[in-house]
This record gives sequence, structure tokens and C-alpha cells, in this order.
Amino acid sequence: MKQIIVQKFGGTSVADTDKIKRVADAVIREKKLGNDVVVVVSAMGHTTDYLIKMAKDISPNPSAREMDMLLSTGEGVSIALLTMAIHAKDYDAVSLNAMQVGIMTESVHQKARIIDIKTERLRKNLKQGKIIVVAGFQGTTECGEITTLGRGGSDTSAVALAAALKASRCDIYTDVEGVYTTDPRVVPNATRLDKISYEEMLELARVGANVLHPRSVETAKQFNVPLRVRSTFNLDNLGTLIIGAKDMEIYQPVTGVAADLSQIRVVFCDVPDVPGNAARLFGALSDENISVDMIIQSYARKTTNTNDIAFTIHKDDYAKAKSIFEKIKNDLNARAVHIDEDIAKISIVGAGMVDRPGIAATMFETLAKLNINIKMISTSEIIISCLVEKEDAQKSVKALHKIFELESNEIADVKGDLPDLE
Amino acid sequence: MKQIIVQKFGGTSVADTDKIKRVADAVIREKKLGNDVVVVVSAMGHTTDYLIKMAKDISPNPSAREMDMLLSTGEGVSIALLTMAIHAKDYDAVSLNAMQVGIMTESVHQKARIIDIKTERLRKNLKQGKIIVVAGFQGTTECGEITTLGRGGSDTSAVALAAALKASRCDIYTDVEGVYTTDPRVVPNATRLDKISYEEMLELARVGANVLHPRSVETAKQFNVPLRVRSTFNLDNLGTLIIGAKDMEIYQPVTGVAADLSQIRVVFCDVPDVPGNAARLFGALSDENISVDMIIQSYARKTTNTNDIAFTIHKDDYAKAKSIFEKIKNDLNARAVHIDEDIAKISIVGAGMVDRPGIAATMFETLAKLNINIKMISTSEIIISCLVEKEDAQKSVKALHKIFELESNEIADVKGDLPDLE
Repeated sequence: MKQIIVQKFGGTSVADTDKIKRVADAVIREKKLGNDVVVVVSAMGHTTDYLIKMAKDISPNPSAREMDMLLSTGEGVSIALLTMAIHAKDYDAVSLNAMQVGIMTESVHQKARIIDIKTERLRKNLKQGKIIVVAGFQGTTECGEITTLGRGGSDTSAVALAAALKASRCDIYTDVEGVYTTDPRVVPNATRLDKISYEEMLELARVGANVLHPRSVETAKQFNVPLRVRSTFNLDNLGTLIIGAKDMEIYQPVTGVAADLSQIRVVFCDVPDVPGNAARLFGALSDENISVDMIIQSYARKTTNTNDIAFTIHKDDYAKAKSIFEKIKNDLNARAVHIDEDIAKISIVGAGMVDRPGIAATMFETLAKLNINIKMISTSEIIISCLVEKEDAQKSVKALHKIFELESNEIADVKGDLPDLE
Repeated sequence: MKQIIVQKFGGTSVADTDKIKRVADAVIREKKLGNDVVVVVSAMGHTTDYLIKMAKDISPNPSAREMDMLLSTGEGVSIALLTMAIHAKDYDAVSLNAMQVGIMTESVHQKARIIDIKTERLRKNLKQGKIIVVAGFQGTTECGEITTLGRGGSDTSAVALAAALKASRCDIYTDVEGVYTTDPRVVPNATRLDKISYEEMLELARVGANVLHPRSVETAKQFNVPLRVRSTFNLDNLGTLIIGAKDMEIYQPVTGVAADLSQIRVVFCDVPDVPGNAARLFGALSDENISVDMIIQSYARKTTNTNDIAFTIHKDDYAKAKSIFEKIKNDLNARAVHIDEDIAKISIVGAGMVDRPGIAATMFETLAKLNINIKMISTSEIIISCLVEKEDAQKSVKALHKIFELESNEIADVKGDLPDLE
């Protein structure tokens, strides 16, 4: 029986008609290998931004339902154009929107979760030898309403389709060559990983490696769909395969190093040490839908019977959080609130660190030798994170990348500017 | 019971977000009158042209199905934005695409005809007090394929919705103030007609008055839907009402004068006068889906036993027609094919000419007095058309407009350049 391969191309891969023709080549290449091919595409380049801008021109607060009606048109354009490009190269293809496929979601707008994917029409069209081009990011409800999946939506569409069709693989085509041991723009001899486990990829995604949205990796892990991250513009490079940890031989304790500059540290100082104060604080943040990342509560000072509660939140949530800090401070009877924006969270990730207790110590020592002050620490099974000054971020990443022997003999060929880490 | 009013706004009325806000005002104005309102919109301004350009960049001959997938996104954008604009003015509204309404068409792409419109969802939403914003131009098949209606599609959507909902009226909002006795850019004191019959409107549309597509007028006539043509940008002007002839008092023999510059005259010279030659000629054109307008076959010349067959076709069909002329000429054993591109069809239209035999004579005399040569004539119940040299078009229209007493005391306030009639 034929293998089914799901391919996903993001907005930059289909940004203009010339790029769409190149994507058609990548699709046909897979078809020529004898596979059944289902392609998921996002909206072209800046289409979504443009649509959002028009909506904001019209209303400061457009309804979620109408935003979904509006944004879903973006993929409608790209699936039709890609299908025409495949036809122009004499291969049979058909475009299907979410309603035509039957990508069923919950009845929630702008961040719906997929609950079922009908495969009848897909299987029929594959049987006819057609390449199927499916609109990513969108879904439909039982009542025929159009929904969108929110952040990481098209990746999630692709993985969910692969799971529903029991595909052999889901290839996520993007503008990078795969998953690296760290950002190659910071460390030029970063190594491209041939394989990485879902778990490691999830942790890397959470700490700032922008290759895949965690949601799509979660879905791939749940349904055990092999995921491949590869470049649209270098088809000879197979990229990085993401699979279950149990299917991998683990040689190295650490797989990757990442710096996350999107966090802000908040410290509530001298909070009276009475029961329920921490619950009150984090409950208030949770009520506003603000996620908290690292948390440290100091031991209570004996003299004042107060302690400090420090935590980090995402920059995007800062404005919302700030508006309730004064109230929380009064509720908690805290002395002051300190904000620190110039921080970076440096993380090492690796499924191999589970049985090796020395890894954390090596990380702390490496930073100490460079006189880098660690402000907060958090650990879980396969990740260790340290909060440092932002100006120390690049130095930290380089040193950790070296000490854990992640360097390649080759210099990565990476486009794009060096991220502003200092 | 509440009246249902269907409104239709074309691409120029929703060309940008500011114009969309003005359209929202026009919609709310109708709602405030106590009516249930269903609004049909086209794609924004040049969206369709832009989408077609991208398709042509990708493929010289894109598939009809994928063109429909592509073009239908245009109305998807405008219905969502208009709905947001109505929300922003605190009125309840919901956008629905053709699939959500259930605008069922035949299974033909790019020129589908509507076969049924489901009214269940529409009636439910109207009952909830919502203004409904429907995507024009598009439909769907029983199998969930997306179709488009071709030329005049959005007008037809609006009229068909009005018929299905038994609406009291269908208002076609456009950039002109209504239907005039002739093009006010040619004759500044043309009169805006308060009322005109479907039949007269149909003839005017066929001979180049670009206010409404004949198809929508046909549909309105068939279901007896009162149509109103009015300006989006001057809501105080009620425009022109188009109704059945039996509902009108007819005072004047001639209602309008129009010049159609879109025709080309073709003459097959010295065609042997044998049975079946005309059938062969027009059969060959019909096989290529080329419509023929005026036809004249001369009496056979006794000396050669041949005759000339002259006819007119639309400019858009010329390339296609030309490619088969040589073959037809040989099949018919004709001597030559002459093409005349510099022609204009001048028509007078009026339900009142039925019982007045002098009208045609007046038309011919008027042109003769100006030394204008009439190349072909065609007549039907309520229209008389004469083919003249293109350079005589403007002069002809002015003279006929005057002789049939169509002049107004006011100068029409019309935007736009004078059409290139000479």
C-alpha cells in the first residue's frame, strides 16, 4: 500500500506566486516518490496582517466570529493558487477548505481545538490519484460555522490530518534547515540535529526555539506521528526528524541550548507570611488569563515575618498584568513591586539528562566561572533553566553549547540577522 | 408583519474600509425604518482583478473549479468587514457565505445558475433581529463544491434572495443615481427615470447601458421582484424603480437611447446561395459559444447566385471567432471576409412604441438628416437598433434623445469621464 505523506508550508513559503511555484515542485517531488500527498498551506505572507489591519480600521474590537470569517479567506487564496501551480506542472490536484474536508472543531472562535477530521473525501480524492491541498488554520463546527485554530494553527492542522489519515510522516516545511542545538545566528557552529524526541522539542519550543509551536508537537506526540522539520528552499537537506524518545538511542545528555528573551521578572517584596497569600496572588493573575512561568518564594524573614515572591510572565501579558499589580499589592499587604525587564532565561534541554545528576551542577559552574549571576532556577525532568541578566544571554548560550559538546565542525548556513540578545 | 428589504452593494461601494463604514450607514438606515434587512455584497474594489492576476501568473489556463475557490474568497472578506462595521455602530449582524446560506447552484463552474436558495437560516437570523450580510456572486452545489455565478453575479444573488424571501424590494446600490434616458456623460440633460419596466430595462442593458446585468433583471421579472437602482453615496435620492410594465402608466413612446460600442461587424462576401450555408456559418460560431447579435442576409444576386451574410459579434469574442473564419470561408466557398471594428449600435427603447408605428420612421429620418449612414437595422417589440459608423455615435444619441423629448430641465450630476464614443 502507498504511504501517505502530509506536507505543510507556512506563509513565508507561499508569500508570492514564484514561491508558490517552488512549493509545487516540492509537492510533486514527494508525489514522484510514489507517495499519496496531502499538502496543508497557510495564508500567503502578510495576508493575515493585512486582513487584521482592515478589521482594526473598522472596529477596535471586532467580533471573534467575524474575525474567523475574515481570516479564513487567507488560506482560501493560497490553496487555490497552489493547486493551479500543481496543475500547471501536469499533476492532478484539488483544493479543499476545512468545511469541504470536514475538519471539525469545538464551537469556539479564534482558538478552537480540532475534535475530529473526516477522512472520507480525502481518501476518495487520494484514491483518484489527486494531490490534495488543504487549508490550514481553519475548521468548521457541526452547525457550519467557520472557526480558526489560533497560534500554531496550520502546523496543528497538518499534524492532525496526518494522525487522522495514519500518515507515515508529517513534513513541516519552513525557512530554516531543521532544529539546531542552539540558535545558529548566535553560535555559528551549532549542530543541526538529525533526530530529536517530542519531549525535547516541546521543551525547546517552550523556551524560545521558534521552529514549531508546542501545540503541534503535543499532537504529534499524542498520536505518534513522525514529524520532520525541513527547508522549503533546500529540498536536498532532510532536516530534523522528531519522534518518540523510545525510538531513539540517546548518546548525549544535552540536546539543545536556548535563550528566551520574552520574559519579565516581577518581585512582590515583603509579603506578610500568612497562609493563602501566594494563592491570592497567582489566582488574581490566572483570573486575567496571565500565565506565570518561573516562581520563587523566599524563606520568610524571621525579623519581619515576610517573604519575597518572584515570578516571570510573558512580555505580551505585561500591560494587562501591570494594571492589577497595585490592587494585588494592597490585597497582599506587600511593601513594593519590582519589575525587571532586562532578563533572559537560559535553558538546556535533553532527554539524556534524566539519569545523570551532574548536568545541573555543570551548568551552574559554567555560568559562575563567567561571573554570571543566576537570579532564578527552574528544573523539570529534561530541562534546566536559569534566569540571568539579558546582557549575559549570548555569553551563556555560547559557553553552555561548548561545555555540553554540541558544536559542529561546520558553520551553519543561516539567513537572518543575529537576534538582539544583548 | 415586517417587510424584508434586500440591499446589494457592488465592489466600488465597498472598495475600502471608509466606504464600508458608509455602506453600514445605508444598511442601518433601512433597518431603522423597521424593515428586516438582508445585504448582498461583492468583493472589494479591485480584489477580483488582483486574484485573477495572481492566477494568470501561475497558470495561463487555471482550472474553473480552482478559479471559483479563489474568487469566492473576495466576498468572504467584504461580508466579514461589513458585518464588523455594522457591529461597530451597535447593530446586530451576521455574515453568511453561500454555503452557510445554502445558495444552491448547478454543478458548473464560473457561470453557474442558481437553482434553489434555502431560507431556513436566513429566516432564523432575521427573527433574531439580525441584519444578514450575504456573499454575492457565489453558490454551492449539493456536493459542497464552491461555484460562482459569472457576470452580473452579485446582482443576480440579490434578486434571487429577494425572490426566495418574498422581499418587498431589492435595492441595487451603485455609483450612479439611477437609470437615465441616455448616458448623462454624453447628454448632460439626460433625465433620470423614476420608473421603468423590466422589459425596457432589459433592452437598455442589452444595448450597452451598464447599470444592471440583464440576468438580474430577467430574474426580477420572472419572480416579479421590484428592483430599485440607487446611489450608495446619495441616500436621499430614491433612484429608479424597475417594475412590471402592467404596473406602469406609459406616457412616452421612447424611454431611453443607448449606444453600444462593443460590437464588431463581420461580412462573409459572395456566399453561394445554396441551402444550409447560413446554418453552417452560425452553427460553427455557436459551436465555439460565440453569440451573434444583428444578422442581415442580402437577397441573392441573380448574376452570380451568391449573397452576403453580415452579422455582429461582441469584441470579446473576436479573437476566438477570427481563428475559425478561414475554415468557415472555405466550407461556405465564400469569396472574402470583411471585418469592421469602427461601428456603433444605436438603439431606442420603449414599451410605448408598441402601438405607434411612426417611431422607427422618425428614428431613420433623424439619422438621415444628419447624413448618418445606417449599415444594419434590427427591431423587436420594444427596441429599434441601427448600426452606424462609430464616429457618428455621439451625434446620433444626442439627436434621438432630443427628437423623442427625453431631455430634462436639469443637468445630471454625474461623475466619471465621457465615454470614448468617437
